[in-house]
Amino acid sequence: MKPVILKDIADQLGLSITTVSKALKDYPDVSKKTKALVKKLAYELNYVPNSFAVGLRSQTSKTIGVIIPTMVHYFFSTVIDAVLKEAENRDYMVIIMQSNENYELEKKQVDLLLNKGVDGILISLSNRTRDFKHLQKILDYKVPLVLFDKIAKTINCSKVIIDDRKAAYDAVTYLIKKGYKRISHFRGDLNPQNSIDRFLGYKKALIDNDIPYDPSLVYICNTNLDFEDGYNSAKKLIEDHGDHVDAIFAVNDLIAIGAINYFNQKKIAIPEKIALCGFSNWFMSSVISPSLSTIEQNAYKMGEKSTEILFQEIEYKHKNINVEYQKVVIDTALVIRKST
Amino acid sequence: MKPVILKDIADQLGLSITTVSKALKDYPDVSKKTKALVKKLAYELNYVPNSFAVGLRSQTSKTIGVIIPTMVHYFFSTVIDAVLKEAENRDYMVIIMQSNENYELEKKQVDLLLNKGVDGILISLSNRTRDFKHLQKILDYKVPLVLFDKIAKTINCSKVIIDDRKAAYDAVTYLIKKGYKRISHFRGDLNPQNSIDRFLGYKKALIDNDIPYDPSLVYICNTNLDFEDGYNSAKKLIEDHGDHVDAIFAVNDLIAIGAINYFNQKKIAIPEKIALCGFSNWFMSSVISPSLSTIEQNAYKMGEKSTEILFQEIEYKHKNINVEYQKVVIDTALVIRKST
Repeated sequence: MKPVILKDIADQLGLSITTVSKALKDYPDVSKKTKALVKKLAYELNYVPNSFAVGLRSQTSKTIGVIIPTMVHYFFSTVIDAVLKEAENRDYMVIIMQSNENYELEKKQVDLLLNKGVDGILISLSNRTRDFKHLQKILDYKVPLVLFDKIAKTINCSKVIIDDRKAAYDAVTYLIKKGYKRISHFRGDLNPQNSIDRFLGYKKALIDNDIPYDPSLVYICNTNLDFEDGYNSAKKLIEDHGDHVDAIFAVNDLIAIGAINYFNQKKIAIPEKIALCGFSNWFMSSVISPSLSTIEQNAYKMGEKSTEILFQEIEYKHKNINVEYQKVVIDTALVIRKST
Repeated sequence: MKPVILKDIADQLGLSITTVSKALKDYPDVSKKTKALVKKLAYELNYVPNSFAVGLRSQTSKTIGVIIPTMVHYFFSTVIDAVLKEAENRDYMVIIMQSNENYELEKKQVDLLLNKGVDGILISLSNRTRDFKHLQKILDYKVPLVLFDKIAKTINCSKVIIDDRKAAYDAVTYLIKKGYKRISHFRGDLNPQNSIDRFLGYKKALIDNDIPYDPSLVYICNTNLDFEDGYNSAKKLIEDHGDHVDAIFAVNDLIAIGAINYFNQKKIAIPEKIALCGFSNWFMSSVISPSLSTIEQNAYKMGEKSTEILFQEIEYKHKNINVEYQKVVIDTALVIRKST
């Protein structure tokens, strides 16, 4: 819808633009009758003399919202990079919020975005989100929603994910083929789906290769999924199992790098004494020593695809076309480096 | 300003709320005269019946805009982390844009943010920005603006920076005290102020310590200021100077890490054959081998302080209090690790 300008009012009433402008501003040299006519029409045409007017009239905000667990994170900052570029291409703006893995905050942020009237929302869920009413609310408001990476299976919307189970399975199968037999898993928290799936992929690879699954080799890294977690779990692993472990499959690169630092400090040779495989392919994994084998997760592609789907759903909504929700699985790849 | 509600119109005209509501919606059972009266007053009171109305009436959008050169960058993602947290504390939303070091894009993004009616803007300039009219425009629009890290000296607004010259001076002085005499500088592009200042700090430290400044030891890393630049410059440095160089002060950590990778590959011992000091203290600098000495730039504090000042200026603007622009210098610190 074209914004209403002063000229539209002037034309319809047969007045000059100056008179219309003066009438709206209550100048004394315009008659009461003219003022009333002008203001009535201005209201009817939804004329609003300021910067909020465009959104008001078109009922689109040209803005999308994104909620991610954290910003200082190679995976998420790469996803956001893609989202910003896709939005930029369409002259859209992006409101970014981080839930800090806090469910209450995530819920509040959804409300803020809905109140703001964003045209669509992208979310990667906090690890602590177990209730999805706030997501259902987005759908009830008929605001397009795309979940990516950390999703809720039960919510009926488009989703962009990787096949965590398959990727983990591939990584652990590769370790087994290299001859490693006592493979530990540094897993994530018990709740998030991708942590569960990576664990299940690990377990299935062992079983399919006739290696007994030993729960004592599984360590839960659930404080911040970071460097310290990896360092401490590596320490605990050696205390618990000594030489009787020959490889680690870690739920992410940061944890693997924490473990590498512990082994480097203790002069435990990588990969001779213990091999490591991470997950995510952070930039630093290619530059540390030894460089880390890992799973390339294609964060940029995930951000790009999620945003593309969101904009398609926004467009369909405006055109009153029915949306069929998509589930897109982004390819992953095993990146082999010196740590294995 | 309290939002105008239907009751305000009803009270002023002595009508029921239902009649007012029907009049605004052009129901046939309300007289033309009443409709005209109601619409005139609705316009005068700036009554707007939808979600954009709050912003329209209060003239605040509860949103700030941030423009940074790039998102996938430890320094900037840490700054953004702080900005989001500060905004969150005040129930503000943040629109983030990345200029990709592109001046035209940065200019366009300023226009988008101004059109959007954001309450304030934070910018770290693109390396290619040499014209500051778009910044002046923000000030002309009376929108609070805080520049951080990459600033324009000639623009009259609040600024949050580090003392790049002093930090570089400290780093190079430290190298000299450790006995290094042929110190190369991998610098940034010729334009951005922080690249200039780090170079000047390097040069001054040499001169103050009676070491002749040798321009042939200065390499310009101007493609992307990244890993590859550092790798290639290290290669060129050894081709040009062979053994006749004993240390490098790099304009950022990523460049230093690129150089470390080259030296590791060529089995040139760090720090025995060549020492390295970076700038920024990226997380990965503490985990690579050898770990990298660098300058801690306090990105989080910079983001926090910039946002704090911006919100103060927004508040002052609403209260019609005069703003005195601040220039805040965030402390830096030399972090000594194994590379020196």
